[in-house]
Amino acid sequence: MSLAASAKSSSRRPAGPDDRPQVTMVGAGQLAQMTHQASIGLNIDLTVLASGPEDSAVRAGAGFVLGSYESLDDLRHFAAGGEVLTFDHEGVPFEHLEALVREGFNLAPGPSAQILAQDKLHARRTLRHLGLPVPDFEHAVAVEDGETFGDRHGWPIVAKAPRGGYDGRGVWTLEGPEELKALLDGNSDGLLLEPRLPIILELAVLVARSVNGESVAYPVVETVQREAMCREIIVPAPIEPELAAEATRLALAIAEQIESTGILAVELFVTADGLLINELALRPHNSGHFSIEGCSTSQFEQHLRAILGLPLGSTALQAPAVATVNVVGRQETPAGRSGLDLALAVPGAHVHLYGKESRPGRKIGHVTVCGDDPAPVIEAARLAASALEGDSA
Amino acid sequence: MSLAASAKSSSRRPAGPDDRPQVTMVGAGQLAQMTHQASIGLNIDLTVLASGPEDSAVRAGAGFVLGSYESLDDLRHFAAGGEVLTFDHEGVPFEHLEALVREGFNLAPGPSAQILAQDKLHARRTLRHLGLPVPDFEHAVAVEDGETFGDRHGWPIVAKAPRGGYDGRGVWTLEGPEELKALLDGNSDGLLLEPRLPIILELAVLVARSVNGESVAYPVVETVQREAMCREIIVPAPIEPELAAEATRLALAIAEQIESTGILAVELFVTADGLLINELALRPHNSGHFSIEGCSTSQFEQHLRAILGLPLGSTALQAPAVATVNVVGRQETPAGRSGLDLALAVPGAHVHLYGKESRPGRKIGHVTVCGDDPAPVIEAARLAASALEGDSA
Repeated sequence: MSLAASAKSSSRRPAGPDDRPQVTMVGAGQLAQMTHQASIGLNIDLTVLASGPEDSAVRAGAGFVLGSYESLDDLRHFAAGGEVLTFDHEGVPFEHLEALVREGFNLAPGPSAQILAQDKLHARRTLRHLGLPVPDFEHAVAVEDGETFGDRHGWPIVAKAPRGGYDGRGVWTLEGPEELKALLDGNSDGLLLEPRLPIILELAVLVARSVNGESVAYPVVETVQREAMCREIIVPAPIEPELAAEATRLALAIAEQIESTGILAVELFVTADGLLINELALRPHNSGHFSIEGCSTSQFEQHLRAILGLPLGSTALQAPAVATVNVVGRQETPAGRSGLDLALAVPGAHVHLYGKESRPGRKIGHVTVCGDDPAPVIEAARLAASALEGDSA
Repeated sequence: MSLAASAKSSSRRPAGPDDRPQVTMVGAGQLAQMTHQASIGLNIDLTVLASGPEDSAVRAGAGFVLGSYESLDDLRHFAAGGEVLTFDHEGVPFEHLEALVREGFNLAPGPSAQILAQDKLHARRTLRHLGLPVPDFEHAVAVEDGETFGDRHGWPIVAKAPRGGYDGRGVWTLEGPEELKALLDGNSDGLLLEPRLPIILELAVLVARSVNGESVAYPVVETVQREAMCREIIVPAPIEPELAAEATRLALAIAEQIESTGILAVELFVTADGLLINELALRPHNSGHFSIEGCSTSQFEQHLRAILGLPLGSTALQAPAVATVNVVGRQETPAGRSGLDLALAVPGAHVHLYGKESRPGRKIGHVTVCGDDPAPVIEAARLAASALEGDSA
């Protein structure tokens, strides 16, 4: 017996006894962690490209290679270990994605789909070109572009960095041209401008599309934001069946048109004028975590099935009401075991922690509860999530 | 980036940012694999004692130490890495369990409970002493013991090796004293004799008992045997509610009396004279795999909660009918990807493979299906399991 801790920079799983599918995933955060969990029972060999041994998926036991998703060399060597290369974030430079395809690697999703999640401006243009409903928008490179747009819609307007923003980062509300001018100085690529929309509700629809072209949609969910971060997912979304059907049709149409592979998440605004498409993500998504317990097939298993060309699974809801509440860091010292103890005492609470250090505003886990009625289900999920955040006083 | 494969004999997970629970589990088979899967979301640090890097739990990414469960030295060093030592099989020599307790290690379950799963004869004596219903039995060390027993019950009778048998190994049907004589020559510890019972049905009840003394029972299941191996689990068992209630009462009473910790599986015979206790297992059990999708809390998460003193979770059934069918190896060449493809095409099939080489008679996975009616649910699970076994012609 040896107890020597091995200082390792890679740990691929041992080869299997048969032709098990080999998947490589760029990124090793919670999405990769939960993909790893889903890979085990299917005997899929998943290896993740990680930045360090503390990454969530590595801590959860995924095979891994340490490297940088910004290095084409690292990506190339990493991708050589699998039959399909997939992603838990949209950070890989577009030119690297294109280079990998040229070199014969099998990317799921491909570059032309991924760019729609990387570049909000490109996504808006593409969706508008396809005749799909998006908010009015403008690409402002000079303050004059914004003046016209602001005058048309009335100030304040919203400005977004075309690339790199998330959880409220890269989004600003501008009261007038002066503020736009100041902001443009720091954003040389220009800004995506849009009106401040009177949003009634925010929705998300997940679609899984297989390499074979088969598609399935998940139930439409409501995403509840606080401080520009999604905090709660309510399933099914409390909307009329006609609106849910329209949202589903839109999401399936986008998957078809952009030829996505794996999970596509479509974020939508409900306005007085109807549905508008906000953003796309081409990977398992925070709004789909409810599917682990809430649906017959989780988004993570579905993503693996889709990119490997295995049959897609049922997305049927397993309970009349499902709620997921994100666990968001509040303090440097996390709730730890006393928080876990309190959370697990909440009947029906399914706890998912990501093994991350707690920092204010950081998603460190989520809790899902299934039941018959929305109100108690949401209440229970909030209670457990709050305990895990350290609010046990 | 390094791509060097590390030849390693241990790989404990990196230490976490907070006081995450540290569990060590002896054994690295499919039960440890599924315990690992359950440990991830709770941010529990699980390390398994494995015999090799091809063991199921190691392939699934559990932290591991290579060593022998028959070596007290290996066990001692291994147990030092956790706050509680638990087990995925009952093979650890009893004297080692006792030595570990004397040395201050925290075993869950403890030796006096584990011996009941190790030694069938001791279990029968203990349960009879507690006034609980067991089949009539005799410890035969000489052929005369068997003659009296056989004359009383009528031949044939059943003989069992008190220790070490499973999946039909260590069980014999004896037509007369001659056969007993021959068998005793090879079993110096003697044999457990019992009448050949007219069994109407076989049941199993899982109980989780926490270190705090809290207990919960899972729904009573029917276990369907073929060639002395459990092949199918039907949930709930097709029996009258009164009989189910009695089986549950029995199982809870046993957990209480033997002070089990973690999962206790009680196997029962239904006979014309009522319920008789067959065997006990003190670990997650094949008859409880249905709980992963079928219950609010899986037996694996529940085992971890129980041994760590965390609150126990709900065992409520998530569907009116649940069936699990074991995937049993038929041939050296497994079904591989074409089998996976066929199995996942079965609506609602939840596939769990153990990453094991296929050998005739070896459990290499299981499939669970949930639904409204037993018949189609069982049929679907059989279909998917059969595909994974390679019966796709």
